[in-house]
Amino acid sequence: MTSTDNPVRLHPAVAPNQPDVTPALEALYRGFESELLVPLWTEIGDLMPAHPRSRAVPHLWKWSNLVRLAEQAGDLVPVGRGGERRAIALANPGLGGRPFATPTLWAAIQYLMPGEDAPEHRHTQHAFRFVVEGSGVWTVVGGDAIPMNRGDFLPQAGWNWHAHHNATDKPMAWIDGLDIPFQYQSEVQFFEFGRDSISDPERITPERSRSERLWGHAGLRPLSATTLTPGSPLLSYKWEFTDRALNDQLAIEAEGFGGTVEPGHAAVRYTNPHTGGDVLPTMRTEFHRVVRGAETAPVKQTGSCVYQVFDGSGTATVGDRSWTVSRGDLFVVPSWQPFSVKSQAGTTDSDSGALDLFCFSDAPIFEALQLDHMEVTR
Amino acid sequence: MTSTDNPVRLHPAVAPNQPDVTPALEALYRGFESELLVPLWTEIGDLMPAHPRSRAVPHLWKWSNLVRLAEQAGDLVPVGRGGERRAIALANPGLGGRPFATPTLWAAIQYLMPGEDAPEHRHTQHAFRFVVEGSGVWTVVGGDAIPMNRGDFLPQAGWNWHAHHNATDKPMAWIDGLDIPFQYQSEVQFFEFGRDSISDPERITPERSRSERLWGHAGLRPLSATTLTPGSPLLSYKWEFTDRALNDQLAIEAEGFGGTVEPGHAAVRYTNPHTGGDVLPTMRTEFHRVVRGAETAPVKQTGSCVYQVFDGSGTATVGDRSWTVSRGDLFVVPSWQPFSVKSQAGTTDSDSGALDLFCFSDAPIFEALQLDHMEVTR
Amino acid sequence: MTSTDNPVRLHPAVAPNQPDVTPALEALYRGFESELLVPLWTEIGDLMPAHPRSRAVPHLWKWSNLVRLAEQAGDLVPVGRGGERRAIALANPGLGGRPFATPTLWAAIQYLMPGEDAPEHRHTQHAFRFVVEGSGVWTVVGGDAIPMNRGDFLPQAGWNWHAHHNATDKPMAWIDGLDIPFQYQSEVQFFEFGRDSISDPERITPERSRSERLWGHAGLRPLSATTLTPGSPLLSYKWEFTDRALNDQLAIEAEGFGGTVEPGHAAVRYTNPHTGGDVLPTMRTEFHRVVRGAETAPVKQTGSCVYQVFDGSGTATVGDRSWTVSRGDLFVVPSWQPFSVKSQAGTTDSDSGALDLFCFSDAPIFEALQLDHMEVTR
Amino acid sequence: MTSTDNPVRLHPAVAPNQPDVTPALEALYRGFESELLVPLWTEIGDLMPAHPRSRAVPHLWKWSNLVRLAEQAGDLVPVGRGGERRAIALANPGLGGRPFATPTLWAAIQYLMPGEDAPEHRHTQHAFRFVVEGSGVWTVVGGDAIPMNRGDFLPQAGWNWHAHHNATDKPMAWIDGLDIPFQYQSEVQFFEFGRDSISDPERITPERSRSERLWGHAGLRPLSATTLTPGSPLLSYKWEFTDRALNDQLAIEAEGFGGTVEPGHAAVRYTNPHTGGDVLPTMRTEFHRVVRGAETAPVKQTGSCVYQVFDGSGTATVGDRSWTVSRGDLFVVPSWQPFSVKSQAGTTDSDSGALDLFCFSDAPIFEALQLDHMEVTR
Repeated sequence: MTSTDNPVRLHPAVAPNQPDVTPALEALYRGFESELLVPLWTEIGDLMPAHPRSRAVPHLWKWSNLVRLAEQAGDLVPVGRGGERRAIALANPGLGGRPFATPTLWAAIQYLMPGEDAPEHRHTQHAFRFVVEGSGVWTVVGGDAIPMNRGDFLPQAGWNWHAHHNATDKPMAWIDGLDIPFQYQSEVQFFEFGRDSISDPERITPERSRSERLWGHAGLRPLSATTLTPGSPLLSYKWEFTDRALNDQLAIEAEGFGGTVEPGHAAVRYTNPHTGGDVLPTMRTEFHRVVRGAETAPVKQTGSCVYQVFDGSGTATVGDRSWTVSRGDLFVVPSWQPFSVKSQAGTTDSDSGALDLFCFSDAPIFEALQLDHMEVTR
Repeated sequence: MTSTDNPVRLHPAVAPNQPDVTPALEALYRGFESELLVPLWTEIGDLMPAHPRSRAVPHLWKWSNLVRLAEQAGDLVPVGRGGERRAIALANPGLGGRPFATPTLWAAIQYLMPGEDAPEHRHTQHAFRFVVEGSGVWTVVGGDAIPMNRGDFLPQAGWNWHAHHNATDKPMAWIDGLDIPFQYQSEVQFFEFGRDSISDPERITPERSRSERLWGHAGLRPLSATTLTPGSPLLSYKWEFTDRALNDQLAIEAEGFGGTVEPGHAAVRYTNPHTGGDVLPTMRTEFHRVVRGAETAPVKQTGSCVYQVFDGSGTATVGDRSWTVSRGDLFVVPSWQPFSVKSQAGTTDSDSGALDLFCFSDAPIFEALQLDHMEVTR
Repeated sequence: MTSTDNPVRLHPAVAPNQPDVTPALEALYRGFESELLVPLWTEIGDLMPAHPRSRAVPHLWKWSNLVRLAEQAGDLVPVGRGGERRAIALANPGLGGRPFATPTLWAAIQYLMPGEDAPEHRHTQHAFRFVVEGSGVWTVVGGDAIPMNRGDFLPQAGWNWHAHHNATDKPMAWIDGLDIPFQYQSEVQFFEFGRDSISDPERITPERSRSERLWGHAGLRPLSATTLTPGSPLLSYKWEFTDRALNDQLAIEAEGFGGTVEPGHAAVRYTNPHTGGDVLPTMRTEFHRVVRGAETAPVKQTGSCVYQVFDGSGTATVGDRSWTVSRGDLFVVPSWQPFSVKSQAGTTDSDSGALDLFCFSDAPIFEALQLDHMEVTR
Repeated sequence: MTSTDNPVRLHPAVAPNQPDVTPALEALYRGFESELLVPLWTEIGDLMPAHPRSRAVPHLWKWSNLVRLAEQAGDLVPVGRGGERRAIALANPGLGGRPFATPTLWAAIQYLMPGEDAPEHRHTQHAFRFVVEGSGVWTVVGGDAIPMNRGDFLPQAGWNWHAHHNATDKPMAWIDGLDIPFQYQSEVQFFEFGRDSISDPERITPERSRSERLWGHAGLRPLSATTLTPGSPLLSYKWEFTDRALNDQLAIEAEGFGGTVEPGHAAVRYTNPHTGGDVLPTMRTEFHRVVRGAETAPVKQTGSCVYQVFDGSGTATVGDRSWTVSRGDLFVVPSWQPFSVKSQAGTTDSDSGALDLFCFSDAPIFEALQLDHMEVTR
């Protein structure tokens, strides 16, 4: 390393509790710089704040813009080995232009043209797909073909071979969530190329994948499954079941019993049927339904989340930002920023008027390390 | 305690490796007796055998006999506070006439006449119901009414208030499984009386209980559930889903993929959706389907099991015993005795010809203590 | 099985809440008997009591009697293959004359003459040795020779090869604790013979065994240990350290800080340094020191314990029994019986006047199964 | 946010597997920029490499330089509320001049002048102190005064109040390790000021802290400790015990048995006696001793480490860098870079000639998330 590579630059502060700025101090700081040292006393306010202070900022991405640009990319950008996926990621404006929705989470729209294949690969980054509209693509995981339709959630634990195929004559878009920023910062990721194209039998999509037939029965574990894998063995959580679970909670509430998180607010967490825990070691995924006119209590949590509006419309408030949101819109909740949503009557012609939200977060990381904290204002 | 209460009686053995039987030895043994002592050297063969040697014996109880006697009890024996339940338990002939199917497990037929209530109580003993035929009774657990129909499995973790009600004009029978012998030997059990009768709203049976509506969706945890209880929060595992899960495994096998335990042998374990583990801390419950003509590999396991034939017929072999079994029959597999079944073609007129078996065991006790061992002869 | 083998005998009770005793009922009961069935309604009071009701009774064994009889056995009973150990077990008078101190625990005095070897074997039963007096024997575990001296505690997890050797010209006695009754009732035990005699290098006793040198450093795990075994890898807990730990707690109490369980009552639990949990999967072992004049609060617990007085004297109260106890005496605390001790001033000429107690229990079994309950009267 | 705030800048690449650079593509990329989007296909090589590729670089800091600059800081920089600590952190040249030794770990020299106090505070960042030379300072944790001497290791789990006091007439230096970069990137940290000065009783240093007297006895848990805290309750691991544990391993190796990691390489991991696991939820700490002339096998691991030479000298090799190291020197091993050391005969006049190394890493983070991988070349 030459001296020009040395990135340390120290600037004495004129502030209470800081040493007097004297020539001797300047000389000391030059000494620190030349030895690649940085003092705590100039940095502590930034590094050790009283509570989490996010560099990531609350931000909203409109689905219509994402789809429009994805369509253009469909015309201009091929999908193939090397580029791997036609995926376009949210870049939080507070994170330096990197494709990071939050310091730990990646969120992207992926787009596949009729007949296209995205080639097989595997990586230690955990991933999932969530489908806000469209159908016709399936993901092939370890040779098991999984259909993708509106409302379906497909977790994809790290190091599983996977490819995508669009079997229809229409393009299709969905969102991908991954822990790319976390594994990038931590420098723990591996990646491997697989086959360039899937086999013909894998192009035949059954209505239900093998994983669903083995694991998609509540409270029934296949005895043939003897090894515990890091992520969920259930590779698709179909919309039909999520929708019914939410309606069941609201029906129980209507009968006068518990079952919802708070009045008018039903919610499920996607879980690994083998462990009852989160579907992925580093990401939590949930689905929330807020009935027409209801409002959620503001919550602050360590760690960050990304939300996508699945249906309905309403107002989302994150820190000092507030947006009107509707189908497909994505927004980010940075660490320790209060978050709440309100479902708005009359702004939707859907049957229920409920605001339906999919979300994912990095909570399992901080729970595993006992660094999770939460405050609810009720 | 008077001397007559002293139960110790020692008998010197004339055998290799035993001390010579002399007057001095006799005097020593009298000394042991008077001080309530027993030497290891006369007992070790019984106490510390080379492998588990069960006092419980393989035994078969025919369902027709159980039902006949239960019907007679229906006429002669009232159900009410004190006696609590019209339950008639299997008494393994190797266990001294006690109502113990195995050293750890209780299995009984319970019988409720039209309109009868079994009064509310709770106990630390873990329990479940399994319905081999009939319908019309429901179990009310903590105020949640759960219907009981053929093939349904209802776990009942310890210390939950529960009662039964027969809403129909026909009697109904089912089996109860509990860990009564284990808790009795261990002397760790508590019991409490509840209300003498359930309330009117609890007599209205919804098609699905609240527990099923909250927890009966594969891989979807209600966010309102924040505390982990010792047993499964899902209080009914309906037959429809168990049946489908087994057929799905056989379909996957037919397509040329894994999914069954061995050829023609599908099986599920009932699990707690909150943890992925066994439904009850001390009992494992499973359902096995063996297709027409298939035979399972002999298995030896530490701990004991009780099986009930749900459908079909075939041959069950336990140790040196072998029986032809059919619907409702119950039999016991003692510790470390080899067990296998064969489904018999032509002996049933059911659609599939498959032999369907429900079973429960004490495996979670020995897994928790790392005392579980298994040998499969394949 | 012939009919004479059928052990079921039913006796209708004339009691409230029992069916009327009629010829029809008698016929029904004969029917139950012939089908090996027992009704719940005649058994429930015994099987499902309001709280644990122990068949085991509180009982005291005087050390002087045990030693006297063990010495006689030393003259009359050889130690060798088949009988395996010159061990004489406590037989709780409530447990039918079997060598069971409690329903789950075995406690015995073992006695080895000068120069004798007890042959090598292994078994799934977990075991330990505790030395109340004497020295000169060592236990060889997997080839590692471990000296035994007054106050030393030696856990011996199941399935480790082990032998004993008396290197001195004096006999030595100590106590063995095992989970024999639990594994016997559960029918999960395995046993295997090893070498008939140990090798010469194993007869050389180092001051500290290899296990102590690898694992006997607080909070320091040897990096070479990569596999987790079911029991503690530390094979001796020397008296010097136990004594110091207890004195440290009393010193902290004297300085005005917490550290003792209650005033004047110091206590340590022996733990597995690899997990921080109990040294053995089925047995908990502790050492308690009650200073002169102090008295412990009565405690009720599910599961049973055996105590041995290590030093000092005092009064032990178990249920409605109370004894004056002194060095070496053993007594039993059955399930859910209140237990307390008082250290008696003036009855001992030891330096401290403290009552020192070693104890072991079956608590890990019931903690693992969430069946542990405790009540303290303070 | 104004447009000037938008940090996204995209540059089409002329490369295989990249879309053709056309005006249409340029327009698309401008569209991405304006909507805060970044495509995967230009980033994947950096974000998803075949194996971990560290931005952090191997680097060595000489202890003599650190001490010299710390002494100058002692004269120029006061210690007090606001700056909190006179700590000077290693800034890895690959990490942009931030005070981050690695992407997750902070390592600093802390320096306290005679009679100085560092004021009390607490934070969620986990921390420890390690003393390579000197004595006379103690750390007061929750009112418990803990002396610091050469070789002592003091873990300091998050959210414990702590202060430092130099009781002597000489300055003292030691190293602090924290997970500041990890909690900073993750945005999960809290911080709170405590008392400005400690009380007089806390200035009296006992030879052993209360924590050591309660928890510093191998395999003996104080029964008064009933709650499990996130980090180790043992607040000092004294040098005397670490040194003895390492020598014991080498003695066992010399006797012809296992015990060392590899020939001539003894090592211990500091563990939490309450759990047997790492002392801190996010940091692993170990001590390694490599005897004169021995060399360790190269190891690659996900996650990063910092080493400090405690005694002896030798050669450390990290990736393509190699340094001669001696007492106090600190160096960094980035993720997945092969690391080995060799102890050099003749370069030291210490008794043993062994190279003694303290190290800490972020391994518990990645083990908890199942992202830990290791390769050893032997």
